[in-house]
Amino acid sequence: MTKTIKELGERGLLQLFRPYCSDRIGDDAALMGATLPDCEMVVTTDILIDGVHFSEKTTSPEDAGWRAAAANLSDLAAMGAEPWGVVISVGLPPDTPVAWIEGVYRGFTDCLHLFGTELVGGDTVRSPVLTLAVTAFGQVHKHRIIQRHTAKVGDVILTTGQHGLSKAGLELLLHPELSEKLQNGISSISIEDTIAKLHAAHQRPIPKLDVPPLLGKLLESHPPFHSPFPISGMDSSDGLADAIAQICRASGVGAKLDWQAISIPESIHQLAGDRALDWVLYGGEDFELVLCLPLTLAQALLQELPHAAIVGEIIAERNLGGLDMHHTFQHFI
Amino acid sequence: MTKTIKELGERGLLQLFRPYCSDRIGDDAALMGATLPDCEMVVTTDILIDGVHFSEKTTSPEDAGWRAAAANLSDLAAMGAEPWGVVISVGLPPDTPVAWIEGVYRGFTDCLHLFGTELVGGDTVRSPVLTLAVTAFGQVHKHRIIQRHTAKVGDVILTTGQHGLSKAGLELLLHPELSEKLQNGISSISIEDTIAKLHAAHQRPIPKLDVPPLLGKLLESHPPFHSPFPISGMDSSDGLADAIAQICRASGVGAKLDWQAISIPESIHQLAGDRALDWVLYGGEDFELVLCLPLTLAQALLQELPHAAIVGEIIAERNLGGLDMHHTFQHFI
Repeated sequence: MTKTIKELGERGLLQLFRPYCSDRIGDDAALMGATLPDCEMVVTTDILIDGVHFSEKTTSPEDAGWRAAAANLSDLAAMGAEPWGVVISVGLPPDTPVAWIEGVYRGFTDCLHLFGTELVGGDTVRSPVLTLAVTAFGQVHKHRIIQRHTAKVGDVILTTGQHGLSKAGLELLLHPELSEKLQNGISSISIEDTIAKLHAAHQRPIPKLDVPPLLGKLLESHPPFHSPFPISGMDSSDGLADAIAQICRASGVGAKLDWQAISIPESIHQLAGDRALDWVLYGGEDFELVLCLPLTLAQALLQELPHAAIVGEIIAERNLGGLDMHHTFQHFI
Repeated sequence: MTKTIKELGERGLLQLFRPYCSDRIGDDAALMGATLPDCEMVVTTDILIDGVHFSEKTTSPEDAGWRAAAANLSDLAAMGAEPWGVVISVGLPPDTPVAWIEGVYRGFTDCLHLFGTELVGGDTVRSPVLTLAVTAFGQVHKHRIIQRHTAKVGDVILTTGQHGLSKAGLELLLHPELSEKLQNGISSISIEDTIAKLHAAHQRPIPKLDVPPLLGKLLESHPPFHSPFPISGMDSSDGLADAIAQICRASGVGAKLDWQAISIPESIHQLAGDRALDWVLYGGEDFELVLCLPLTLAQALLQELPHAAIVGEIIAERNLGGLDMHHTFQHFI
């Protein structure tokens, strides 16, 4: 028989969680120390519901935990911050298998530890539906805060990586028969490896926390750009098109896209056919950063990030060059 | 017809929430500034589920919001911290009346604003069950952190206020006919006022954020106690007995209670009969602070807090002088 939360009891549950938690976990609250010199704190929060944001069909408990951590770390990266700590609150039906929730904690903390941070607090309660509520806090140098509303006419638009891969992974998980459309292409990667890579893009997304320190280094070696901070942007968790639209709206500018520069991976062409570009623009959950910055800096950044690309530029006219923004509005219901 | 969340849509919902939020709400994350000089950050989190932690029978949406805020602010007070900011994530069934969630936000932010802090972020998603997940941040002077594990033999145990009132309010809300037991007592307070006071104790609890600054002032006027910080403790959200037991367990000490000093309000005698002391010791959710400190400091604190009392002392023998700790263990299911 599968052991459930109800059988384990509250004390057992707390003992189960303890090894995953930081020593900073305190009494009524976790004690975090002070902010680093010249840094500000940033805070982001997300709530994920079983059947709405994750499903057993596509997401193991480890993956559900990983994705919850990655989404919040990506929000920190999107502000230019480095992580400082994370808390998770969990609502559990009494018949939840102990192995399920332990898997969530394992995936969650695996992701945190990979990115140099840890779980510093939480709360666990009974609920009719599996619920994960995550709050992450980070620190950002006060002169290197990435914001949406500071894009300037003449900036180029750079993406730190490819888009559409998470969507492709999700579609393959929901409809495994789609894999029959995949063909051995010009690259030497096998179909099995392609499937594994696309699954991983959906199940184990990588927040781009390596980018903010890189931006700091680039600025130091490009003195003319040192101040004010010349980089704006956000992450592409709601899709590449959404990110560009949000930045333009917040900055009161428009965008001219270089359609040739928007990379459509071969596997997405094969899977999505004539909807390939839609997957890339509107798929979402790739957790790349979309940055607007001077061309010189963008070119220097391209040297450091193998999958980065300059996909357009910021223009004064407030239009989005053919992006269909009806696609990107995610309905609450 | 009552307007529901589903009819309002996501944009409408965001517009509804905006007036309740701080200007510090940012793009992907809220920007909070740096910690105050010589301060550390503390973080606490809670998740509340409809039917488990609140119910329409006893809690209006305004009260559910207030209680969610108060519980987290109380955790900050319990560490000796002052609030820095709060985020709330909300899971909502599509048929939730718009007025309900607006009531929650109103009660939540009313409580935050009363205590000088604000809502700096959040997330709203669809869920089969109403869910409120709150994370609060505070700051505490690094030499004035209240912890559980530092109670010392010879300290007295001080409570900042009366206990059992929240439990009495809850019982009156669940069983209004209980009010027939209330009698006009020696005080001139009417039965209606008593009922209103007990309802408020349950529905609008007051976190003791006024106490940490008071402790700071007292220490400055009592130089011998200036360093190391001589005060330990926690809040009594899980009951007075639980707080004393937790402090003793964490500090490796015991407690001798002064049963005569534990105040049982007249109304609780009338409502609970021979279970009155149980309500006071084990009722919970009064959000007072239970502090262990030298007698001189405790006496000075009594002058400032009209309902405070010295209810016992810390002893070396690890027993709790008759507290029945089976009462205090809250089962997960």
